Amino acid sequence: MPDSEFEIIKHYFSSRTWGGENIIVGIGDDAAVVSTPADMQLVVSIDTLISGVHFPSQTSAANIAGKALAVNLSDLAAMGATPVWFTLALSLPEPDHNWLAAFSESLADMAAVYGIALVGGDTTRGSLSITIQVAGHVPTGRALLRAGASPGDQIFVSGEIGDAALGLVALQQQIAASEDINYLLARLHRPQPRVELGQALAGLASACIDISDGLFADLSHILAASGVGARLTQEKIPLSDPAQRFLSRHPDLSAGVYNRGDDYELCFCVPKEKCSQLEAIKKQLPYRLTHIGEIVAGDELQLFDGKNTRVDFEKNNYDHFAGKI
Amino acid sequence: MPDSEFEIIKHYFSSRTWGGENIIVGIGDDAAVVSTPADMQLVVSIDTLISGVHFPSQTSAANIAGKALAVNLSDLAAMGATPVWFTLALSLPEPDHNWLAAFSESLADMAAVYGIALVGGDTTRGSLSITIQVAGHVPTGRALLRAGASPGDQIFVSGEIGDAALGLVALQQQIAASEDINYLLARLHRPQPRVELGQALAGLASACIDISDGLFADLSHILAASGVGARLTQEKIPLSDPAQRFLSRHPDLSAGVYNRGDDYELCFCVPKEKCSQLEAIKKQLPYRLTHIGEIVAGDELQLFDGKNTRVDFEKNNYDHFAGKI
Repeated sequence: MPDSEFEIIKHYFSSRTWGGENIIVGIGDDAAVVSTPADMQLVVSIDTLISGVHFPSQTSAANIAGKALAVNLSDLAAMGATPVWFTLALSLPEPDHNWLAAFSESLADMAAVYGIALVGGDTTRGSLSITIQVAGHVPTGRALLRAGASPGDQIFVSGEIGDAALGLVALQQQIAASEDINYLLARLHRPQPRVELGQALAGLASACIDISDGLFADLSHILAASGVGARLTQEKIPLSDPAQRFLSRHPDLSAGVYNRGDDYELCFCVPKEKCSQLEAIKKQLPYRLTHIGEIVAGDELQLFDGKNTRVDFEKNNYDHFAGKI
Repeated sequence: MPDSEFEIIKHYFSSRTWGGENIIVGIGDDAAVVSTPADMQLVVSIDTLISGVHFPSQTSAANIAGKALAVNLSDLAAMGATPVWFTLALSLPEPDHNWLAAFSESLADMAAVYGIALVGGDTTRGSLSITIQVAGHVPTGRALLRAGASPGDQIFVSGEIGDAALGLVALQQQIAASEDINYLLARLHRPQPRVELGQALAGLASACIDISDGLFADLSHILAASGVGARLTQEKIPLSDPAQRFLSRHPDLSAGVYNRGDDYELCFCVPKEKCSQLEAIKKQLPYRLTHIGEIVAGDELQLFDGKNTRVDFEKNNYDHFAGKI
């Protein structure tokens, strides 16, 4: 079994077949060489996952790999980009071969689904952390930004909100396994980046963000960047059936369920006159798009209940240095 | 003082002016957007520095920043690329504001020297580690690779070898400060990536690598990738005057001085008939280029002394999992 850094990279990473176009030189030189088509811009994002901070320390290697790539692909999705290549900086306490085999296999499987190639990496000894930098292509000038929302734009979210947070609570409180809890755990461990939605929204959405820190916290970034406010109806925020059943059994866990983060859904704004174009997109997607509110003048995020009464909420976003986890 | 992840990024990183062309959207959205000129390819590399592994834990924030960017720029230099942008994943035990101020200032200063812009990042709480992914441009098809050396090619190194390793020893053995030791420590803490040399070698060198793991270990990568051997003369390997004076006082520390790594010089091969072209390049550089040997048939790295007697050596490269540090 390989034990040196070079052998680990060779055995577990460079020996695998990584697809992807536009890769001129992949893993194995001082650096990779890639090309960008003339009519495309490159979209790049970097994210680190640390054991015990971004995932429970007992998380499997396969789930860690899947999540590490997914959270980065989610950033590309929020920009409307098509994934092309990524680099990996992996820090491990020791060369655990079962772990490396499962990690690299899961990473390659997920990369194949999204047609993204690993082009370079670094393997170091240290506490377990995974840093991935992804790059994608977007037609020149068509990247979806946070700035761009205007009063009157309608606000939507993809999929459902709160599943991952409830999965984490179920894990932490060791609530007995069930089909619903398995669903919530899958949503925690294996977020599905909404890449195809992001691509479809380029040229249609006026602003877009992926929900990693919490719906209200992330929507607030759109509001700040766009210089606008928003009015949301709490009852419209979509919860999954498993989440609803879980909460009916554990009503004490419902506080802040909309805003605990780790959803990796897209929150986006569409000008009113373009909303009908969403219908064709919806038909292509295996998940919901839900209208949750409207952009308004001002700079405030206002939440209302179904009776049009204002509801207080805590922004309560996940922050690595504020220590709120 | 800022304490949240968002405030740290805003205060210490996105508020600074980062130069660089081809940056369409920098820090502050879900991802950055960059462009690549039509006649250029992108060269990308990622490297992690971990406290206590890649730098002594007492290293200053300014030196850590300088080194983290330098070791990545050195990979670009080895490919003949011009630095353009980079992303940063910073993991910190706590938000230490003096540390962050010194780190971000040093990073911005060095970035300005090389005209490279920080376009994105991630700040997490964890043990101190710095991952930087750099990207540079190279004219299409002109990247310097490890493969390409042929028998008869002449082997050169830039600058001088062994300074950083001796600086580390001086630090570890708490040898009293002197002008020479300050020089060696500066070489340890502040490697100077040979970017301008790499650019000049594109189209001239048949193979190139940067020396991070040790001269023999890194040259061996060229030999393996090119399917050739090499013959080096030990006496030709250049040592700096401070290194020579240090070793004359501490002869017990001379073993393996050529091969301890952390040099961040370039080792490159030039076809015999093109070697005269190096003269013009040499005149532009503030450091030496030294001829140390020749590429030969076979697959062996052979070391000879000045009397043409074969010398044994240990490859002894730095390896993060073989635990040879």
